[in-house]
Amino acid sequence: MEKRLIITKAQITPSRPDFKVFGVFNPAVIKVKDEYVMLARVAETFAAQNDTQMVIPVYRNHDYVFLKFSKTDPDYDFSDIRVIRNHRQNYLTSISHFRIGRSRDGYNFTFDEKPLLPDSIYEEFGIEDPRITEIDGKYYIAYTAVSEYGINVRLMVTTDFKHFKRLGNIFHFDNKDVVLFPRKINGYYYAYHRPSTSEFGQLDMWVARSTNLIHWGEHKVLTQARIDYTHSVRLGAGAVPHLRADGWLVIYHSADTQNRYHLAALLVDKDDPSKILKRSKAPLITATEPFEKEGLMPEVIFTCGAVFEEDEVKVYYGVCDEKIAVATLTYDEIDRNLGDV
Amino acid sequence: MEKRLIITKAQITPSRPDFKVFGVFNPAVIKVKDEYVMLARVAETFAAQNDTQMVIPVYRNHDYVFLKFSKTDPDYDFSDIRVIRNHRQNYLTSISHFRIGRSRDGYNFTFDEKPLLPDSIYEEFGIEDPRITEIDGKYYIAYTAVSEYGINVRLMVTTDFKHFKRLGNIFHFDNKDVVLFPRKINGYYYAYHRPSTSEFGQLDMWVARSTNLIHWGEHKVLTQARIDYTHSVRLGAGAVPHLRADGWLVIYHSADTQNRYHLAALLVDKDDPSKILKRSKAPLITATEPFEKEGLMPEVIFTCGAVFEEDEVKVYYGVCDEKIAVATLTYDEIDRNLGDV
Repeated sequence: MEKRLIITKAQITPSRPDFKVFGVFNPAVIKVKDEYVMLARVAETFAAQNDTQMVIPVYRNHDYVFLKFSKTDPDYDFSDIRVIRNHRQNYLTSISHFRIGRSRDGYNFTFDEKPLLPDSIYEEFGIEDPRITEIDGKYYIAYTAVSEYGINVRLMVTTDFKHFKRLGNIFHFDNKDVVLFPRKINGYYYAYHRPSTSEFGQLDMWVARSTNLIHWGEHKVLTQARIDYTHSVRLGAGAVPHLRADGWLVIYHSADTQNRYHLAALLVDKDDPSKILKRSKAPLITATEPFEKEGLMPEVIFTCGAVFEEDEVKVYYGVCDEKIAVATLTYDEIDRNLGDV
Repeated sequence: MEKRLIITKAQITPSRPDFKVFGVFNPAVIKVKDEYVMLARVAETFAAQNDTQMVIPVYRNHDYVFLKFSKTDPDYDFSDIRVIRNHRQNYLTSISHFRIGRSRDGYNFTFDEKPLLPDSIYEEFGIEDPRITEIDGKYYIAYTAVSEYGINVRLMVTTDFKHFKRLGNIFHFDNKDVVLFPRKINGYYYAYHRPSTSEFGQLDMWVARSTNLIHWGEHKVLTQARIDYTHSVRLGAGAVPHLRADGWLVIYHSADTQNRYHLAALLVDKDDPSKILKRSKAPLITATEPFEKEGLMPEVIFTCGAVFEEDEVKVYYGVCDEKIAVATLTYDEIDRNLGDV
């Protein structure tokens, strides 16, 4: 496996002169003919903060508005750099949008200046963690949207990566980490998803199916957080599944109680994505390099997309919630990592 | 408005000799020809508890099994009579199933001995709070299922209230309070639902739609918890909506920070259940009677069904999580309670 840090926030222009880029991470990547197209999550903050108040941007009615919080207000908890907490409503300190990058080699990306901004009451706190699935020549983007209405998963579609049509909330709050399978299986579209909070359940991966990509149901647990080789407390689908002769290859993330992430793989049944045939015997990709261990959220490695080339797999992943790397693996490396369930 | 307490746990036979009935509440009710059919939630506990351990039944592989918890185990919190809490997995102290009652007058119900039991890995901690919607001559029952996989909403269907076919999880965890509309509207089935927990969102009522009752999407917020006439912190749909000339009449519940409930009404657009035309100016039904103020969970009044007669509405509701009452209202009383939005 070769790992390369390929994108840092220094190369991303803020979407406004009064913003600064907090991080560029968790990118979807898809190969369109000979070009690698990336949809990266860019998190920005209002640049001119001071010691007594925090200003956060939210996107409302097609423009940014700014909410101001006094840092001495006892009703609000500012201890998490990413979230302002209140008993009734939490807020994000940054707001994310998407930026399109293009590359010929899969490593050197040039980004469009034009941001793909939030554009819905369900996206007021930002859009995050996209996954691109090509289905019948169209590119469907499942993404996480945060607002005062919770963390919903929404869908948009494009044919040219210039015009994007929103198709609404496909999963209600709280849900994240939705990946769509790239073709119908016996008449049904499939998705993996990760409901996010529960008094009773855990943070597991689920499977759902649909006849039209818009309406989803028949929710089933796919796999629970594992505690065998790692004290995993939450899982989530990562890259869009890749069809091989022996089944669908799935790369997902897992995090432990200390918020240390790793990536792992599943091989699931060709005809039934709810049936696991093989799974990683050990973490497939872990934080080993200095650039993975040092950063805003150390040891967070989070994939939203991989490119399955003829003889190798490029796994793109967000690192420490602030930068982007790619790990290149051979299929043999992945197969040796897989064991019987 | 006339209120009558009609059912208490004394008249429900436990489903097993070693169980005792903890409560009978939150019933769905539908009129089938001249008969009122009730599907009541019956919560039971294992009868022979002692001071040192708590035994709770769960339903697994078509039979009850018993989990035992030492009351001195510091990993578990027994302070809530209804829930055993642990940092990783909560358990319910009781397990609920459904029981069918029948009545000629809508007040005096005779219950079948035969219980409708949990029957899925998603129902191991019980099935709760059913709503019956008649669609094209079939009775669809949306209900809450609790398990180690969270609080999911599931669907079953029957034509005779003897044989029930399960149709799977229609909403992922956490969700509750799902009611299906009784007919398609411009080609779509509609449901109200209430996602239950979020870091960002609140406990609001949402609307979703479907083409087949199984797969749901296009989730939109219907109405947020209100803080004008009551400090409401959560809402949820109650009775199945009733079509009138001026729109759909919706009766729902609302609870405040002290867990005091009331019932209120909405009038929503005939062609678009996401559009509210009128809403209650004040609580429609509140806890006023001693039987509503005294009980396991005082002032909990929770409806899962109403019968819309020619000249009056019978609103059935669970009281204090342990008994069942009916409030009979005239349409005039409801209309006087509704005001412009």
